[in-house]
Amino acid sequence: MNVDKKLPLPRMLTLGFIIIIIVGTLLLSLPIATRSGQSTNYIDAFFTATSATCITGMTVVNTAIHWSIFGKVVILALVEIGGLGFMTFAVLLFIFLRRKVDLTTSLLTQQSLNLQSAANIYSVVRLVVNFSLLIQALGTILLFADFGSRYGFWKGLGYSIFHSISAFCNAGFDLYPNSLTRFAGDPYLLLVLSGLIISGSLGFLVWKDILFFHEDRRLSLHTKLALTTYLGLIVISFVVFLATERNFGDHSQLNFFQRLVDTFFVSVTPRTAGFYIFNYNSFSDAGVLFTIVLMFIGGTPGSTAGGIKTTTVGILLIKVWSILRGKRDATFMGRRFSDDNVNRSLTLGFLVTVTLAIAALFLLMTESIPRHMGFEYIVFDVVSAFGTTGLTLGLTPNLTWIGKLIFCALMFMGRVGIFTVMYSVLTSKHPDDEFRYPEENVMIG
Amino acid sequence: MNVDKKLPLPRMLTLGFIIIIIVGTLLLSLPIATRSGQSTNYIDAFFTATSATCITGMTVVNTAIHWSIFGKVVILALVEIGGLGFMTFAVLLFIFLRRKVDLTTSLLTQQSLNLQSAANIYSVVRLVVNFSLLIQALGTILLFADFGSRYGFWKGLGYSIFHSISAFCNAGFDLYPNSLTRFAGDPYLLLVLSGLIISGSLGFLVWKDILFFHEDRRLSLHTKLALTTYLGLIVISFVVFLATERNFGDHSQLNFFQRLVDTFFVSVTPRTAGFYIFNYNSFSDAGVLFTIVLMFIGGTPGSTAGGIKTTTVGILLIKVWSILRGKRDATFMGRRFSDDNVNRSLTLGFLVTVTLAIAALFLLMTESIPRHMGFEYIVFDVVSAFGTTGLTLGLTPNLTWIGKLIFCALMFMGRVGIFTVMYSVLTSKHPDDEFRYPEENVMIG
Ligand SMILES: [K+]
Ligand SMILES: [K+]
Repeated sequence: MNVDKKLPLPRMLTLGFIIIIIVGTLLLSLPIATRSGQSTNYIDAFFTATSATCITGMTVVNTAIHWSIFGKVVILALVEIGGLGFMTFAVLLFIFLRRKVDLTTSLLTQQSLNLQSAANIYSVVRLVVNFSLLIQALGTILLFADFGSRYGFWKGLGYSIFHSISAFCNAGFDLYPNSLTRFAGDPYLLLVLSGLIISGSLGFLVWKDILFFHEDRRLSLHTKLALTTYLGLIVISFVVFLATERNFGDHSQLNFFQRLVDTFFVSVTPRTAGFYIFNYNSFSDAGVLFTIVLMFIGGTPGSTAGGIKTTTVGILLIKVWSILRGKRDATFMGRRFSDDNVNRSLTLGFLVTVTLAIAALFLLMTESIPRHMGFEYIVFDVVSAFGTTGLTLGLTPNLTWIGKLIFCALMFMGRVGIFTVMYSVLTSKHPDDEFRYPEENVMIG
Repeated sequence: MNVDKKLPLPRMLTLGFIIIIIVGTLLLSLPIATRSGQSTNYIDAFFTATSATCITGMTVVNTAIHWSIFGKVVILALVEIGGLGFMTFAVLLFIFLRRKVDLTTSLLTQQSLNLQSAANIYSVVRLVVNFSLLIQALGTILLFADFGSRYGFWKGLGYSIFHSISAFCNAGFDLYPNSLTRFAGDPYLLLVLSGLIISGSLGFLVWKDILFFHEDRRLSLHTKLALTTYLGLIVISFVVFLATERNFGDHSQLNFFQRLVDTFFVSVTPRTAGFYIFNYNSFSDAGVLFTIVLMFIGGTPGSTAGGIKTTTVGILLIKVWSILRGKRDATFMGRRFSDDNVNRSLTLGFLVTVTLAIAALFLLMTESIPRHMGFEYIVFDVVSAFGTTGLTLGLTPNLTWIGKLIFCALMFMGRVGIFTVMYSVLTSKHPDDEFRYPEENVMIG
């Protein structure tokens, strides 16, 4: 089958996401989706569907109060589809129908899971799905141990399932009026949720390496770099937040251990879970800026996390360091990064920065900043949307309709991948580039 | 003569700048440097000397009121040294002494002027100096046509020389209490100053290409890219500021033509002149963010301007565009950019962004933000310092002593070049890299 004759793959992926969002929007705009029985306006339904499919967790209506059980199940389904990637479900369908996966589906799944090759698509998808469901089930049980006694069996079960899925998918949707602020002093829940968030944001490639380490006896460069950056980020965040957010202890007289767990949770969530236990308006300025940086970075590629990704930042730091040391190659643990890897990282970082700056410029014109705040009010939420984190300084619930559309675009690019989206818009054909212009140098910096 | 046995060149350049700043600090801390006859404290003298040598124009004491004629001459000398590059003066000394320039001086000058080769150092330096003095003299005459009648002969001459040098060197020092706000409606002065600012920030390579175009009949890729980006920036800025700063017309009932000239001036100054005719606190939020972007970009390499430079941004945009279009090469006007050029641009952009983010993080902890402002209060001035622009939202005059030192470091890295400074700190030797680690790929984004 000749794939080239059809739509280019990036365009098909982008289109697939759009179709899912549209279906979600229609379902959420039905009267049965709300508790009040009144239909939600299209823009808010569209925003919620985008936020769920892109597992961002930003809300313009309160999830617990506004949506009915039906609405919540739709949101949860969109989150699961967005979290595991809809191509995963396409392959599942093939498996279910006992048909052979066709080439297009195979290539799309490869692209959607960021795989190096399209071989073993079956086993990869099976691994992803089984592992995800296992962790989510485990999370549900652990959460139910608390929620069951707290809310009774059925409500407790519902809450356990909802928050387990939301945490593992780094979706950030919750069923409380102020996210998890009420659990600020609850180490058990916070640690269970942190575990789910980390499991989801490490990505299946890392998990595959870890799970089969006893067979292979080696970790890929990807896994080594991802784990190192990930661990480094958590340790640095923990230290920074301990230094900048001394007032965590003041909230309702938490003890030292509770403060440590809280700080750990706050270090983990920008990976891009989007739950919060303290309103970010109560953070120090330095803490807010640092959270912006963390959301910008996000988690591991091929995971449920957003951002420009840990590996990208890892390569950028190693490359810059090697250039400053006058070395030719960017190396890590006895391996050299390919030029293509390095170029892609640098380009991604630049492209995202420019996109976010342009979005912020427009929002500074369309939205109004409260008197006691400044640019962070816009920038925090812009980075949060693109990073699919879902944290807010207060802008999101107050967005104008233009603002809502800009945010939908940011969440979409953040989840589908800015390269994929831009390719699908820009690349009409693949020029051969057989002819190359002569090279000439330019002064830099 | 074996240069390798001595200090590495970047370290010598960095050291040279430091020595000039120290000499400047000592001179400015003398009692005769102030009008009051009382000596200035070392930190403020150091800040002023750094700001002048790095042609930034940020001030912690008012230039006109605080410094004596002697102090002002010291500042002007530091500005001229910083603007033309102190290696230029070293070569001038050789010419003056009728001695042959030694290899080290020749190589240092090459590096300091960002030249491709060390050949023709004499003629390049002569061109740079003659051209600069000519333009500055012309500027002085044009300014004197106004200042002469305004302030009388001697004071008018002094003011003309001072502001001509300051404008051409993109230094941003002025002799007024509120920069050039009093000239907001004065098209003649603003256009003369704009001309000086543009002349200085285009860089000598571009000027050489333009001046000898009748002989060579071709422009280098550098000149084409620099001019295109430069012109593009001015046009875009002009349109953006016309849209966002509608209230320019409200200031003291300016007519439409005056408003156009004001908008033009405001589009030119972030290139990194640092003069202002309207306080940036009165700008719209979008205007402030856009100015931050402009200061970050700055002017042409090898000019008196700072920032990451127009050519860097030009290459980055072209590279990203070519990647998104699925093309192998980044090309412009029938020429291909070398991989080295592209890599250096990408690395520079990333390195600067990280440096500024870290600086902002520290400043958010040490400085206090006025109640009605937010992060822009810090970020604007941080970018302004690194870009050696010198514009401020009000932070600079109120810096703590830690803040002053951070700003001095930013101005220094901005002027000497972040690569040069980091090389000189980090590179102890040049490793051969004969042995290369095996390559392995990592997932990105
Ligand atoms: K999220
Ligand atoms: K300046």
